[in-house]
Amino acid sequence: MAETRIRFGILGCANIARKVSRAMLLSPNITISAIGSRSLEKATAFASENHFPESAKVYGSYGAVLDDPDVDAVYVPLPTSLHLQWAVVAAQKKKHVLLEKPVALNVGELDTILAACEASGVQFMDATMWMHHPRTAEMKKLLLDEQRFGQLKSVHSLYTVAPDDDFMKNDIRVKPDLDSLGALGDAGWYTIRAILWANDYELPKTVTAFADPVYNESGVILSCGASLNWKKDGKVATFYCSFLSNLCTDIVALGSKGNFRVHDFIIPYNEKVGSFYAVANTKWIELALGSDPVPSEFKITIDVPQEALMVQEFGRLVEGVRNGEAKPDKKWPVISRKTQLVIDAVVASIKSGFVPVEVIY
Amino acid sequence: MAETRIRFGILGCANIARKVSRAMLLSPNITISAIGSRSLEKATAFASENHFPESAKVYGSYGAVLDDPDVDAVYVPLPTSLHLQWAVVAAQKKKHVLLEKPVALNVGELDTILAACEASGVQFMDATMWMHHPRTAEMKKLLLDEQRFGQLKSVHSLYTVAPDDDFMKNDIRVKPDLDSLGALGDAGWYTIRAILWANDYELPKTVTAFADPVYNESGVILSCGASLNWKKDGKVATFYCSFLSNLCTDIVALGSKGNFRVHDFIIPYNEKVGSFYAVANTKWIELALGSDPVPSEFKITIDVPQEALMVQEFGRLVEGVRNGEAKPDKKWPVISRKTQLVIDAVVASIKSGFVPVEVIY
Repeated sequence: MAETRIRFGILGCANIARKVSRAMLLSPNITISAIGSRSLEKATAFASENHFPESAKVYGSYGAVLDDPDVDAVYVPLPTSLHLQWAVVAAQKKKHVLLEKPVALNVGELDTILAACEASGVQFMDATMWMHHPRTAEMKKLLLDEQRFGQLKSVHSLYTVAPDDDFMKNDIRVKPDLDSLGALGDAGWYTIRAILWANDYELPKTVTAFADPVYNESGVILSCGASLNWKKDGKVATFYCSFLSNLCTDIVALGSKGNFRVHDFIIPYNEKVGSFYAVANTKWIELALGSDPVPSEFKITIDVPQEALMVQEFGRLVEGVRNGEAKPDKKWPVISRKTQLVIDAVVASIKSGFVPVEVIY
Repeated sequence: MAETRIRFGILGCANIARKVSRAMLLSPNITISAIGSRSLEKATAFASENHFPESAKVYGSYGAVLDDPDVDAVYVPLPTSLHLQWAVVAAQKKKHVLLEKPVALNVGELDTILAACEASGVQFMDATMWMHHPRTAEMKKLLLDEQRFGQLKSVHSLYTVAPDDDFMKNDIRVKPDLDSLGALGDAGWYTIRAILWANDYELPKTVTAFADPVYNESGVILSCGASLNWKKDGKVATFYCSFLSNLCTDIVALGSKGNFRVHDFIIPYNEKVGSFYAVANTKWIELALGSDPVPSEFKITIDVPQEALMVQEFGRLVEGVRNGEAKPDKKWPVISRKTQLVIDAVVASIKSGFVPVEVIY
């Protein structure tokens, strides 16, 4: 029987690649066939420590992975400043591209990457893992429920985290030459995606950054936020992201008839159970001494981690393309591009003194 | 033994006065000695329906309550447009003033009221009831806890409610001649107070309204929001208030080392138990498959409603003044004035096209 698994090559030994490698090994339609690092020694150690299959090849460069005919797809967790170069080469070499977020330093770079993927007919997807948790689909059902949610009025999303001193000094996400978008590109990516997701990917008309982001001494954003506006029925959204506050990952979505809250939307507290809290048609009780009903907890249990669901979905799309049954799915690149457009608008609003910036697809 | 209870007169038969009357009747240091309405019939029915003591007098005007020597203090739940007139007269007649929120249409009006109170030596307090719930004090302890919370970085507060059609057509809070601040004055008051409370009443330097508030056909705000900025370590806050979304009353306060959330901060779901959720020093577990610790629920049980705690506190302050033991407490008028200043700044920012507006005490 022919191997039907999608064979992944991994570019670099980023910390996040440990988690995604594990997810690949838990996925029946995926195998890891290669890893490349600028250091062969690091790649060898990474493959061993992360229980790669014996058959997995280890390379001392990224290019060697892309030249390997036994690689169908690459997972790219490199620093953002390297995405343009390596994602484009990967696409040119006909490798499908699973790209870590933030996907690019700006939408111009992303467009170059997406054009390369389109020209080669390969699938593109960003690695926004929480999108693939079944909880996310359950919350989307609620968002679309006329009786339990009604019309979406506003979304408020937060991702703050207080990494350790080593991260704040040495992580790629605080280095201007590696991930110059800092907390906006990392934490902010998720919160902006959450807002777009709740709005069925309708882009806001304007984005207005909150005044006075915090920067590190190299000028990389450590905290910022913005309000987003659709110029339609007063619908608004806000996000706030930070590397300076204790962990909080929240979405609150407010509808005319109901609302829901989730407090661990990016990485569930517990890998096997994801909760959210929803309520609809709330009324004050007599004399407004309380309200009824109170929010209910909804628990969604999963057998496989959200990252495994992500690579499995990517694998299915790649499989369809490989078999000639389907063209690359346009949904994922479009969603990535919209997320990047909002990030770019936040940057533009900050640079222009926190004025509203138009967002045009 | 002389009567030591503080004798309240109530101006008008507002719905909220039913709840506050109940609170007065539950308070050992308070009694209701009079109610006045433009309709004697309504006042009589109100006194009866709300179990006023036999001794309570019923008047067909507000002025009669203020002329009653058996009234020490007045509770004023009149439409906001009437606060200036009646709160000033009350103060001039040496009645202590418990004033419903929003306290005035703008800070100029409030200053006139506060000057009248000061000239007469009477206590002023606004009726922001959740301030008096012991949960609020517990959360404040947390805010001040260097180990469990650290430095406050941001606060995000929401109050949305979807009242019935009758409210949306007929309530004073949607009438330009009665409560022209609409949802901002009502729901927004609480969220702004929450932000100031969390910031130990340090006023923000600037307030920037979110674009495109929603108005009713009379031009009264039905939903709006703003970001607030302290120009200090990037500290920010946001609030959003609305009469167009299902009930949600949230505070999320994010500190460098910990955070807390409360989802029913204005009126607890359950009058006898108030919860909040806090966590500190959260770390990712191995491979970031989850985080630890997870937020804990803190439950605060109370015997008497928060509105009773409010009138009791007001009664204690009035008692001190009446006995000549104390001067009127400045804390409460100062907090009211700061809240009103932020509301005024939101209005100014909206009127000037959503630009940042400076807030000066």
